[in-house]
Amino acid sequence: MKLQIALDTLTIEECIMLLDEVKDYVDIIEVGTPFLLEEGNKPVKIFKERYPQLEVLADTKIMDAGEYEAEGAFKAGADIVTVLGVTNDATIEGALKAAKKYNGKVMMDMICVADMAKRTQQMDAMGVDYICCHTAFDIQETGKNPLDELVVINQNITNAKSAVAGGVKLETIDEIVAEGAGVIVVGGAISNAKDRIAMAKAIKEHMK
Amino acid sequence: MKLQIALDTLTIEECIMLLDEVKDYVDIIEVGTPFLLEEGNKPVKIFKERYPQLEVLADTKIMDAGEYEAEGAFKAGADIVTVLGVTNDATIEGALKAAKKYNGKVMMDMICVADMAKRTQQMDAMGVDYICCHTAFDIQETGKNPLDELVVINQNITNAKSAVAGGVKLETIDEIVAEGAGVIVVGGAISNAKDRIAMAKAIKEHMK
Repeated sequence: MKLQIALDTLTIEECIMLLDEVKDYVDIIEVGTPFLLEEGNKPVKIFKERYPQLEVLADTKIMDAGEYEAEGAFKAGADIVTVLGVTNDATIEGALKAAKKYNGKVMMDMICVADMAKRTQQMDAMGVDYICCHTAFDIQETGKNPLDELVVINQNITNAKSAVAGGVKLETIDEIVAEGAGVIVVGGAISNAKDRIAMAKAIKEHMK
Repeated sequence: MKLQIALDTLTIEECIMLLDEVKDYVDIIEVGTPFLLEEGNKPVKIFKERYPQLEVLADTKIMDAGEYEAEGAFKAGADIVTVLGVTNDATIEGALKAAKKYNGKVMMDMICVADMAKRTQQMDAMGVDYICCHTAFDIQETGKNPLDELVVINQNITNAKSAVAGGVKLETIDEIVAEGAGVIVVGGAISNAKDRIAMAKAIKEHMK
C-alpha cells in the first residue's frame, strides 16, 4: 500500500521543503493538475532528479491526445500519468501505448464516472495499472467521501490496483486501509498539518 | 464569428513565428492542453504580451478545482479558459466565479458529453460564454465530425455562443459557417499548411 502526496498549491521551493521533510514516509510524489497548468513539466523533472527513490505522478487528467500527452509527461520523468475515466477508450489506449514505451504506469481518475462498476471492469480489461476513485475537491463540502466508490472498484478489478483520493486524512485512513487500496492519496492533511513530518509518519504507520 | 488558432505541438518560438505570420487573420490564440502541460502558463503570458490585440484561450480542460485553476490562467493573462462539460456543476460555477473576478470568459468543452442537448441547456442556464462541440483528436480517424453536435448546441442555446473544434479545415469550413458558430477552432489545417498565411486568410475569408 503506497502513500502518494498530492502537491497542488505550493511553489516548487515550498514543495522541496515539504518533500525533504516527509520523503521517508511517502512513496509517490504527485504533481497536481493546477501545479502542472502553472509550471508545466518543470516540477516533474526537478522532483524526479531530487528524489529518484520515489515515484513521480503527473496528474495530467488526460482527456484527449492520450499518447502524445502521456509521452510528454513520461519524457519529463514521470513514472505515472493520470487519464480521466470519462474519456474515449482510444485516449486510454494511447496513454497505455506511451506507458509501454517508457515503462511507465497509467492511473485512471474516475471522477464523474457515472457507472463505476462497469467502467472499472472496462479499464481493468484494458490493462491500466491503477483505478482511482476521486471525490472532486469542488464537491468535498457535500460530505461525499470516496470509500463507497473504493468498495465498488475493489469488487470489480482483477489485474489493476485501486487507488483513492479526495480529502483523505488521518481520521478516515483506517476505514480505507481496512477496505484495501494500492495507493492512498493525501494532500492537505499532510501539507497543511502543523507538524508535517509527524502527520506523514502517522498516516504511513496507519497503512501498515 | 471568430477564428481561433489551436497551438499544441510547436515550441514557443515556433508559435511566435506562426503567429507573426497569421495574426491579422485570427482572433483567438489557443494554448492547447499538451502545450500547457509542457510549459505551464508561460506561453499564455508571452502571447498575451506580444499580441495584446488578440484574445488568448488557455485550454485548461478543467475537471476539478474550477475557481483555483481558472484563476491561475486568468492571472497569467488568459481571456478565456476551458472547462469540461462532463464535470460537476460546482466546478463550472467555480470557473465562472473566477471569470467574473477577472473579466474573463468560460468555454465549455463538450468532449464525451453523453446528452448534448440536455447538458447544453444546463450550461447555457449557468451563464457560460461558449459551448464547444469537440471531436476528440483520438477519434477523428473514425470519420466523426463535429457538425452534427454543433447543430444540437445551436438548437439549445439562448445566451451562450457555440464553438466548434476537431479537425476543422478549409474543405469543411463552409458547412460550419452555414450552420453558424461564435468561434471556429482550427489547428493543423493552418499550422501544417504549406502556405500558412494563405491558408489562414482563406479560412478567415470563408467565415465572412
